[in-house]
Amino acid sequence: MGVKENSIFSQIIEGKIPSHKLYEDEFVFSFLDVNPQSPGHALVVPKEPAKTLDELSEESAEAIGRVLPKISRAILKATRTKEFNILQNNGPNAFQSVFHVHFHIIPKIPGGPGLEIPFVTSPLDQDEARSLTAEIRKNLD
Amino acid sequence: MGVKENSIFSQIIEGKIPSHKLYEDEFVFSFLDVNPQSPGHALVVPKEPAKTLDELSEESAEAIGRVLPKISRAILKATRTKEFNILQNNGPNAFQSVFHVHFHIIPKIPGGPGLEIPFVTSPLDQDEARSLTAEIRKNLD
Repeated sequence: MGVKENSIFSQIIEGKIPSHKLYEDEFVFSFLDVNPQSPGHALVVPKEPAKTLDELSEESAEAIGRVLPKISRAILKATRTKEFNILQNNGPNAFQSVFHVHFHIIPKIPGGPGLEIPFVTSPLDQDEARSLTAEIRKNLD
Repeated sequence: MGVKENSIFSQIIEGKIPSHKLYEDEFVFSFLDVNPQSPGHALVVPKEPAKTLDELSEESAEAIGRVLPKISRAILKATRTKEFNILQNNGPNAFQSVFHVHFHIIPKIPGGPGLEIPFVTSPLDQDEARSLTAEIRKNLD
């Protein structure tokens, strides 16, 4: 279990910082990454403020696992892609920059953008983000 | 739900192909990757033979989520590392090479080996694998 802290993701979950919200349940919050590697790049975050996955409770980890296929399907439909990567980083030397557990869902456009390590991103366009969010939420089954 | 197929991972789960097994329960099987990016690089695989995460049942996805922290902790202890990445690839353009869902757990040694995209791996040394497997299994709490 992590200790309660005021990470930027905790503030997003609490609604203190706005986000393009895709999904929410008792344990999980999901929204568009503000620095996407490709259109539809989303984060799936536990409400529990654990810093790294090894510190996350079984209950929260299971809740994230449960919704990854559903959120992924909605993103694939909305972005008309078929391929994607799930990435979850733990520790500054392992590309973690926000110290609150988060799973990336990164659509891959063949021959186009997708997961790159080290991260290559560009800022989220707000208009594009709004229509993408609507489309993903519509496709959540 | 995926259709039952005879992937190399199905054969590993059935014991037809030997592996350095780390963990097994009703839904999940975990073993050392034969082409590790760093010592302790492991795979966590659903017994359900879905090709990609978007096709995986909620039951299997939740079962994988549940055990990721536990297996990660055991790997970190056994390899005396603190940082790691979780990676799960879907589709040939997204670095997937075996078409049976698998989550990579890749320890990161600061300034040393860890996750690289595209994958940079070297074959698993069998002696090292045996002692590592014993150490990880001992650390599963």
